[in-house]
Amino acid sequence: MKVYLLDNGTLMLDKSLATWNHNQGIEFRFPVFAVFIDHPDGKIMLDTGFDKDWVERKLPFEKPTQTADQTIEAQLAKIGVKPEEIDIVVNSHLHFDHCSANKLFPQAKFIFSRSELRHSFVPDPWEKLGYDPDLVNIPGMKTELIDIGDYEYEIASGVSAILTPGHSNGHLSFIVRPGDGHQPLVFPVDVAYTRHNLENKVLMGLHSDPEDLLRSMHKVENIAKKIGGKIFFSHDPEEYTTYKLAPEYYGG
Amino acid sequence: MKVYLLDNGTLMLDKSLATWNHNQGIEFRFPVFAVFIDHPDGKIMLDTGFDKDWVERKLPFEKPTQTADQTIEAQLAKIGVKPEEIDIVVNSHLHFDHCSANKLFPQAKFIFSRSELRHSFVPDPWEKLGYDPDLVNIPGMKTELIDIGDYEYEIASGVSAILTPGHSNGHLSFIVRPGDGHQPLVFPVDVAYTRHNLENKVLMGLHSDPEDLLRSMHKVENIAKKIGGKIFFSHDPEEYTTYKLAPEYYGG
Repeated sequence: MKVYLLDNGTLMLDKSLATWNHNQGIEFRFPVFAVFIDHPDGKIMLDTGFDKDWVERKLPFEKPTQTADQTIEAQLAKIGVKPEEIDIVVNSHLHFDHCSANKLFPQAKFIFSRSELRHSFVPDPWEKLGYDPDLVNIPGMKTELIDIGDYEYEIASGVSAILTPGHSNGHLSFIVRPGDGHQPLVFPVDVAYTRHNLENKVLMGLHSDPEDLLRSMHKVENIAKKIGGKIFFSHDPEEYTTYKLAPEYYGG
Repeated sequence: MKVYLLDNGTLMLDKSLATWNHNQGIEFRFPVFAVFIDHPDGKIMLDTGFDKDWVERKLPFEKPTQTADQTIEAQLAKIGVKPEEIDIVVNSHLHFDHCSANKLFPQAKFIFSRSELRHSFVPDPWEKLGYDPDLVNIPGMKTELIDIGDYEYEIASGVSAILTPGHSNGHLSFIVRPGDGHQPLVFPVDVAYTRHNLENKVLMGLHSDPEDLLRSMHKVENIAKKIGGKIFFSHDPEEYTTYKLAPEYYGG
């Protein structure tokens, strides 16, 4: 099993959206990436990044940067994978920077939390900017809506999702165990944009439920510790510079 | 029954704390007031404001303004009431700007939500700045910890509290029906700092649970409409200029 981080460019927000009620008026530019897993049982995407045109049209203040090389399609091409080869797409949640390339994979099976679909179609007043059902509603799509309880949902052998609500209502995090002595990989996704968020229990300003988010931080942290996993932060400008990006990979 | 608004000065926050994830870097200076009710059955305080020294020591960035005339003690003196005459103090919640003069009333019976006490003594990481158990832990205090369900909790005839969580975990709002043809008064307290918050369902950046807060906004709005009540907003600079302040009063 090979695990690739697909570089998807950067976005910008007021820093207080990453550190709730603190650091207002400071610009925070952060990376976005998706994960591709070349698995013996099939080709899997964990999230699918953002679309530069969509962001420029809908949220121009996020000032996206994304070169032609940083689209999900280009990133997959880099490792010789065509979009139509993807078997499964799992979305941690349906915010635009995690599902915008879903449309590349009409033949895939989609997996995401049931409640994310409700929030995408009928967002609460404060979360309207993050969701867009047009990004999710792929003609002919095969979707498995899941409702994970307190267990690991197995996507494929060694690849699982856990329920970690709080950033968004049906948010999932991912645990990947490549086996063969390779260190497990833990993707909290938006349970913690940065190491600072997780280690200091500093919540992001964008959230659906702060108590839930705090519980999810503890959950991810405990699991990572228990299995000796390496944590990859979803939007951490400093940590990101240390990650191996496609065509390099983790596992083997 | 006479209902007095006790002017308590002003505080300042980044505007994004009043309009979640919006208006970062803009100063928002807002009024603070407490309510005194001269009731046939006793003298009642609804909240007790902030203490300028405490704020200057603990949260200097909130730049408090409070003249000698704007302390709760001075405001009560203005209408000829001594602190030791107060029978009941109800705290909507235990944030510092709603309970700092509790210490003036050691003889009174205190009423507030059970869960507020837990949050005051052991705040969640993001709410540490708002609470201070020293403001609440009055030596010899008689306290009635309440756990209101989905009903009006009667404090005295025509004076009631309803549970409206979301800004803080055990938050209460107040409904006062002075009778004798006087218009009912509705005090959402921190369900909505401003009319803008309530009418547009714009949540404050300070909250314990956004879904709860939205529900509480709908609840207060519906009750006010049903009983034809006038809504008094807790921290609305514009609306505040239209309110009658002590020694003037509502009811009669």
